[in-house]
Amino acid sequence: MSQGIYLDNNATTRVDPEVLQEMLPLFTEHFGNPSSMHGFGAAVGGKIEWARKQVQALLGAAHDSEIVFTSGGTESDNTAILSALEAYPKKREIITSVVEHPGVLALCEYLEKKRGYTVHRIPVDNRGNLDMEAYRAALSDRVAIVSIMWANNETGTIFPVEELARMAKEVGAVFHTDAVQSVGKIPMKLADSAIDMLSLSGHKLHAPKGIGALYVKRGLRFRPMLRGGHQERSRRAGTENAPAIVGLGAAAQLALVHMGEENTRVKALRDKLEQAILAAVPSCFVTGNPDDRLPNTCNIAFEYIEGEAILLLLNEAGIAASSGSACTSGSLEPSHVMRAMGVPYTAAHGATRFSLSRDTTEEEIDRVIAVVPGIIAKLRSLSPYWQQEAGRPKEFAPVYS
Amino acid sequence: MSQGIYLDNNATTRVDPEVLQEMLPLFTEHFGNPSSMHGFGAAVGGKIEWARKQVQALLGAAHDSEIVFTSGGTESDNTAILSALEAYPKKREIITSVVEHPGVLALCEYLEKKRGYTVHRIPVDNRGNLDMEAYRAALSDRVAIVSIMWANNETGTIFPVEELARMAKEVGAVFHTDAVQSVGKIPMKLADSAIDMLSLSGHKLHAPKGIGALYVKRGLRFRPMLRGGHQERSRRAGTENAPAIVGLGAAAQLALVHMGEENTRVKALRDKLEQAILAAVPSCFVTGNPDDRLPNTCNIAFEYIEGEAILLLLNEAGIAASSGSACTSGSLEPSHVMRAMGVPYTAAHGATRFSLSRDTTEEEIDRVIAVVPGIIAKLRSLSPYWQQEAGRPKEFAPVYS
Ligand SMILES: Cc1ncc(COP(=O)(O)O)c(C=O)c1O
Ligand SMILES: Cc1ncc(COP(=O)(O)O)c(C=O)c1O
Repeated sequence: MSQGIYLDNNATTRVDPEVLQEMLPLFTEHFGNPSSMHGFGAAVGGKIEWARKQVQALLGAAHDSEIVFTSGGTESDNTAILSALEAYPKKREIITSVVEHPGVLALCEYLEKKRGYTVHRIPVDNRGNLDMEAYRAALSDRVAIVSIMWANNETGTIFPVEELARMAKEVGAVFHTDAVQSVGKIPMKLADSAIDMLSLSGHKLHAPKGIGALYVKRGLRFRPMLRGGHQERSRRAGTENAPAIVGLGAAAQLALVHMGEENTRVKALRDKLEQAILAAVPSCFVTGNPDDRLPNTCNIAFEYIEGEAILLLLNEAGIAASSGSACTSGSLEPSHVMRAMGVPYTAAHGATRFSLSRDTTEEEIDRVIAVVPGIIAKLRSLSPYWQQEAGRPKEFAPVYS
Repeated sequence: MSQGIYLDNNATTRVDPEVLQEMLPLFTEHFGNPSSMHGFGAAVGGKIEWARKQVQALLGAAHDSEIVFTSGGTESDNTAILSALEAYPKKREIITSVVEHPGVLALCEYLEKKRGYTVHRIPVDNRGNLDMEAYRAALSDRVAIVSIMWANNETGTIFPVEELARMAKEVGAVFHTDAVQSVGKIPMKLADSAIDMLSLSGHKLHAPKGIGALYVKRGLRFRPMLRGGHQERSRRAGTENAPAIVGLGAAAQLALVHMGEENTRVKALRDKLEQAILAAVPSCFVTGNPDDRLPNTCNIAFEYIEGEAILLLLNEAGIAASSGSACTSGSLEPSHVMRAMGVPYTAAHGATRFSLSRDTTEEEIDRVIAVVPGIIAKLRSLSPYWQQEAGRPKEFAPVYS
């Protein structure tokens, strides 16, 4: 990791060198089209089916045919929602949450504004937990699909997807979960689950960008978004992205191997980082639900300073982190997730996400712990807000107690 | 090419080793998310813009912002058509041809059956040329989009897209062309063209699978298919597939360099192959328009035998070719392209496509020339049809004269 310390793994991960090794022969040697009737193609088909089984295993799915390869998380999200709406044309309502990724929210907004659907956006409390009463109230037989993420990308907060799915099934709604941040980080057993559809994205689990999958439970009515050839059992047309599919398969296999580490060593590093920062820096707090979170994610709001400024100084110190989600950075508003949790603007602006991975080392974490307090102090010394507010009660944290 | 002789480049091409070299650092080193505010991401953004300029240059487009990266040809085709329909909601007609790729045809069939659009499928003559009178008759101000391919994937026949585009513009229709088979093989200058949208796919020009582009002329009304983040100027959401985009850029650059070769050396090899087979094998003929064709493609219909059997024996001899398009192989019907041209079933079944690339060598072609006549003779000696028909006038070719 010559370029520095990479703590932005929720934005994207490094392709595991073992994954890349598996992919390489498919670019220049076994490069055939798997639909072709000759040796160049035949070898590839087998590799794709191997990869499908690895993804099946990672998800604990009952059948490998439930895995549909796509170009990524956004395509999976869009496909899931559009499929349900088309399969149940008489149901004109959608349930989602206020803290979804744009891959869900932007589509829902479009469906509401341009196609006349009713969208229920379930709020969250200031720990990022879903308002279960509001969810229950929104459920009805008019709902075609519920799309609620497994874990939030900014805070790592985990939603009770199994319970949400069971409740959705009771009213006959399809339940989809955007698990782009959860797959590979926490164990799953979809075979025993009420979840109908699940999105994942390769580049969040050390596979390459441009590949993802949509889990579609056997028996679920499905309508494709991309139409053309018969690839993926006519559920996703287009020449199979064989190298990336094999990369995703290899990454899924590795994720299963490393799952224990993710939940012990990586989690311990995350906790060490978090506790050290909370102890050393005044007026900062953890956003989201600290008790039910992805093991690799920590999001700390530093009051009275700008996240962008923090990122710049971290970057100068060779540390990559993020504020808000990468997709919406460039805007100066606090992210929709921070606003949805009611984090005060003075703190939301300074929300900084550190997201680890199995590539992260203890030395890296120690270095970040050594550097962050100085950066925050320096920025605050330049901040008129901080000067003004320094005397007042500084913590939003009590709300969380 | 240790595995044999690869003459199935219209199905997919080998990734050029130089292309792969350009891609490699983006998997494990410059792997950041280009939307991120740190060093890991920043380098990647510049690479993507470099790649966009290479694709712009290959297409002779006026602006690099006219290039939208997608996951491949099918996504580009689907996006183009759906965009035009949504941008012009009052126009309820679509014009296409009977010989399009399923990436266009399957979507049109869906739009016709499920969404109530009127689809005009313009027929072709037995050389594969478009029926211009039928085209003219179908054009009206009710047409939202014309989608007609630049060159056919099975026969290589080139359509007069510039003329077709000008005619479409006269009635205010958007003109889209599926140029998946043409880009990189023949010169283009979209800056001076009436074409509004154009699809291309990386894996047909020695870039990897899973990447493509849609050219969208500046000023054209556009509506995205994938909704989510603001990537690609909000025209295609989802984390950018940076390694593959850079691969496509490198492939575009190489394609420009090799364009002359494609049109001289590759074309000469194709012609040599074709003439040798026509001379050595009785009762076979070239399908499509031999005078206006992609330089790399030749499709020969061998009468009274099955294409699948030909492919099997070719494969045993270490030669990869194809019958029909890879996407529809596995079916025993002659391809929709052969049927559209009215090629008699007894010949259409034996249609075999040899598609070359700059990887093809003269020794390979000589070997194919040496092997094919024996294969055809062997299969015919087993064919009851051939025994029956051997005495009759054997050629469909006169129709072409
Ligand atoms: C929760 C979540 N959903 C969806 C996506 C979109 O995935 P992709 O960028 O692969 O389209 C992301 C990340 O970008 C994400 O964090
Ligand atoms: C003419 C044509 N259009 C579209 C496609 C689809 O491209 P892709 O497989 O990249 O989706 C192909 C090839 O498969 C093709 O030959």
